[in-house]
Amino acid sequence: MKNKEITKRKDDYSAWYLDIIEAAELAEHAPVKGCMVIKPYGYALWENFQKVLDAKFKETGVKNAYFPLFIPQSFLTKEAEHVEGFAPECAVVTHAGGKKLEEPLVVRPTSETIMYDVFSRWIQSYRDLPLLINQWANVVRWELRPRLFLRTTEFLWQEGHTVHASEEEAEAKSKEMLEVYRTFAQDYLAISAVPGKKSESEKFAGAVSTYTIEAMMQDGKALQSGTSHMLGQNFSKPFEVKFLDEKGNSQYGWQTSWGVSTRMIGALIMAHSDDKGLVLPPKIAPIHAVIIPVWVGEEEEKLVFTKAEELAGELRKKGLIIEIDKRDTRPGPKFFEWEKKGVPVRIEIGPKDLANKSVMVVRRDSGAKQAIKEKGAADEVIKILDDIQAGLLKSNIEFREKNTVEIDIWDDFKKLFKEENKFILAHWCGSAECEAKIKEETKVTIRCLPFGQKQESGKCILCGKPSGSRVIFDKAY
Amino acid sequence: MKNKEITKRKDDYSAWYLDIIEAAELAEHAPVKGCMVIKPYGYALWENFQKVLDAKFKETGVKNAYFPLFIPQSFLTKEAEHVEGFAPECAVVTHAGGKKLEEPLVVRPTSETIMYDVFSRWIQSYRDLPLLINQWANVVRWELRPRLFLRTTEFLWQEGHTVHASEEEAEAKSKEMLEVYRTFAQDYLAISAVPGKKSESEKFAGAVSTYTIEAMMQDGKALQSGTSHMLGQNFSKPFEVKFLDEKGNSQYGWQTSWGVSTRMIGALIMAHSDDKGLVLPPKIAPIHAVIIPVWVGEEEEKLVFTKAEELAGELRKKGLIIEIDKRDTRPGPKFFEWEKKGVPVRIEIGPKDLANKSVMVVRRDSGAKQAIKEKGAADEVIKILDDIQAGLLKSNIEFREKNTVEIDIWDDFKKLFKEENKFILAHWCGSAECEAKIKEETKVTIRCLPFGQKQESGKCILCGKPSGSRVIFDKAY
Repeated sequence: MKNKEITKRKDDYSAWYLDIIEAAELAEHAPVKGCMVIKPYGYALWENFQKVLDAKFKETGVKNAYFPLFIPQSFLTKEAEHVEGFAPECAVVTHAGGKKLEEPLVVRPTSETIMYDVFSRWIQSYRDLPLLINQWANVVRWELRPRLFLRTTEFLWQEGHTVHASEEEAEAKSKEMLEVYRTFAQDYLAISAVPGKKSESEKFAGAVSTYTIEAMMQDGKALQSGTSHMLGQNFSKPFEVKFLDEKGNSQYGWQTSWGVSTRMIGALIMAHSDDKGLVLPPKIAPIHAVIIPVWVGEEEEKLVFTKAEELAGELRKKGLIIEIDKRDTRPGPKFFEWEKKGVPVRIEIGPKDLANKSVMVVRRDSGAKQAIKEKGAADEVIKILDDIQAGLLKSNIEFREKNTVEIDIWDDFKKLFKEENKFILAHWCGSAECEAKIKEETKVTIRCLPFGQKQESGKCILCGKPSGSRVIFDKAY
Repeated sequence: MKNKEITKRKDDYSAWYLDIIEAAELAEHAPVKGCMVIKPYGYALWENFQKVLDAKFKETGVKNAYFPLFIPQSFLTKEAEHVEGFAPECAVVTHAGGKKLEEPLVVRPTSETIMYDVFSRWIQSYRDLPLLINQWANVVRWELRPRLFLRTTEFLWQEGHTVHASEEEAEAKSKEMLEVYRTFAQDYLAISAVPGKKSESEKFAGAVSTYTIEAMMQDGKALQSGTSHMLGQNFSKPFEVKFLDEKGNSQYGWQTSWGVSTRMIGALIMAHSDDKGLVLPPKIAPIHAVIIPVWVGEEEEKLVFTKAEELAGELRKKGLIIEIDKRDTRPGPKFFEWEKKGVPVRIEIGPKDLANKSVMVVRRDSGAKQAIKEKGAADEVIKILDDIQAGLLKSNIEFREKNTVEIDIWDDFKKLFKEENKFILAHWCGSAECEAKIKEETKVTIRCLPFGQKQESGKCILCGKPSGSRVIFDKAY
């Protein structure tokens, strides 16, 4: 990659995306079809996702546990919509320990069925509720057109699964967890995603309702970044997840499940990066600042290294993760390398800077370069990082708002999506037929029925039947 | 479990072990044969293992990454000993996405082959070395006689894999990582395990040497608790893990791999627990202390709860994880419940304690009960926790030392293992034949050739041929 140029974003968005992943050393295709290798720098991002989300889950009372990778095929068939949705994507173990298995085992595509079979024995009475469980795991969904992070046969994710004594409580939990995802995307990834409800045809196989956060990428396409499902009693009935209520009556539990995956790294990459490489919001970046000493000869080397270590020490004391690039190679290629990796701030320290009692700080977002005084440099760097974080979110919001438009005429709708992608707020009659026809003709889907969308009477963009509020249409990853 | 008694340790060690797991709610058999469900309290232990070990690995320069779950069958066959060792235990995916696969995929039993295929492309020159990678993952080895934590078809582990430019450096790394495991077991799990080298027949399939730490359980049996393998060039040759040295010559890399798994939780359970339930060293316990308010009537409730919250707050400020058991049920069953879970310290707060301006502290290790003054209680609790940690390690060392004996006569050896299990230091000629015969006749294996074992001339316990130092024999989990 060192000598390969990154494809321009405007020339070929897909090629640009893959070039960024290669240039920043985030991941690569594995020798197994459809799978990926997450490289150390990409995995460090995932570790940061995990650290933040895990703490947020635990704050809501959720506990982690671990359930088996393998699911007996018979389990999957217990919920009719669920098996219909997942069966075509399953990888199946038929032989093990040198023998053919009596019952084939499915490598989990998601864990509702195996978990709820177990939950049915964990729960006796209302005192055992709510049951709030999360699992960090790998799952497998056979993928014919893989794309790093966005669609891979195996991916990493977390899946939360809860059981409640009432419908209202489960409904509230599913929305609470969606809000955890939304605020995580906003506060850490600097992505302002739109929360809403999926249409019937786009919801999770087996759910009553699916809630989603939809992020807009820089090509105007949508990326579903996290989902939370209200499962109602759809699974508790076949899996007998029952409890005795306070009056001693047996009741079926009300359930939710919710997850985000390594796909969200794909969203992060596409949300902010540019033609020079990855751009990372400081709050999720594996490295906050890289210090690059610039020197000629041993004497200078010693002086700039000492200063670099001093500054790194101060920054680390303030909780920042700092890399000092001491390699004895030309500074230019080093600058490019760290730029490609999206490190938010680069700090250059050379003999001139020493003489001026200052260091040179270069922002990854704007490329702006400024000399800052040695004294108080650490606080200044923190200010700059905060400013980068806020700036990225601001741009993200502005971009989404600029590219969200209302359309009321079907020809305008078709024409727009021939040329570009946007969040189109349009009326829809609520029928699966219109939804399917729109998708067939334009490849555009309903991304969500956004929460809090104002009520207004209008006509379905396709059939003209009455509609009470607009939904978001877009092409999607 | 609430009403089930724990089998006495001396009556049936195996049943006792499983009862402890059930009573402490650590894990249970999954509906999939050979697999387990790790329950929240058991998983919290694993999270603590991960937190400590991950930080230790990173201190040595290791970085985390993630490689695919599936390995093409052809990869596994590239190293002859490796495939011979693992093929009988493999689970194989033959169908996926509704079709039969052209090449079956093995669910990883360990990741040498898939990783090294990738490493061969990551490494060009000596500048890319050492490559130090770790992965936290699930692996599958088909298990016919599963036992929770100790032997399960699927288990969680970490596997470190490194590549070096020289044999010496790889050798040193494999020993360094063993030492990380040994000190982790000692300093956190309060288990003093013996480090040493495996015999040829007990080493990892494909390794040049396997290093191990062997812990002694309370029934005198050994439990291999962590291993580190010097792989030499056994894998780098078939997988072409090559680098250009400083002179521009192409060389094969020198490799190591090392891992610990959820099996180590089994070791932890068996090392310290008693007939009342689990006993946990404070430094690895998910909960350091449980506060149990004792009250009658609303007025008392308010007072003891306030005091409980106050003390919990102080203890949490000092970094401890505290649970307050506010359930409105009788205190007795609560005491038993937390005892079963091995929480190191129980703090009772009742109206009498309030009047005396003290709290009652009960140690899980000895059962000793003492009133401590309210003022300075937090510091006192920390002292008690430190004392428990030190005491558990001391007992563990004493027990192992007491049960480590030298034997020089074959009849004595056989007789001893008919009645009990110990670490037997005996001479061995070094031949695989003698080793196999001893195993056949007594089920006893060579646990390790302990590091630093003194040189002394002796005679093989079985054949009488000369031997230069003693090795450790024992039955093992």
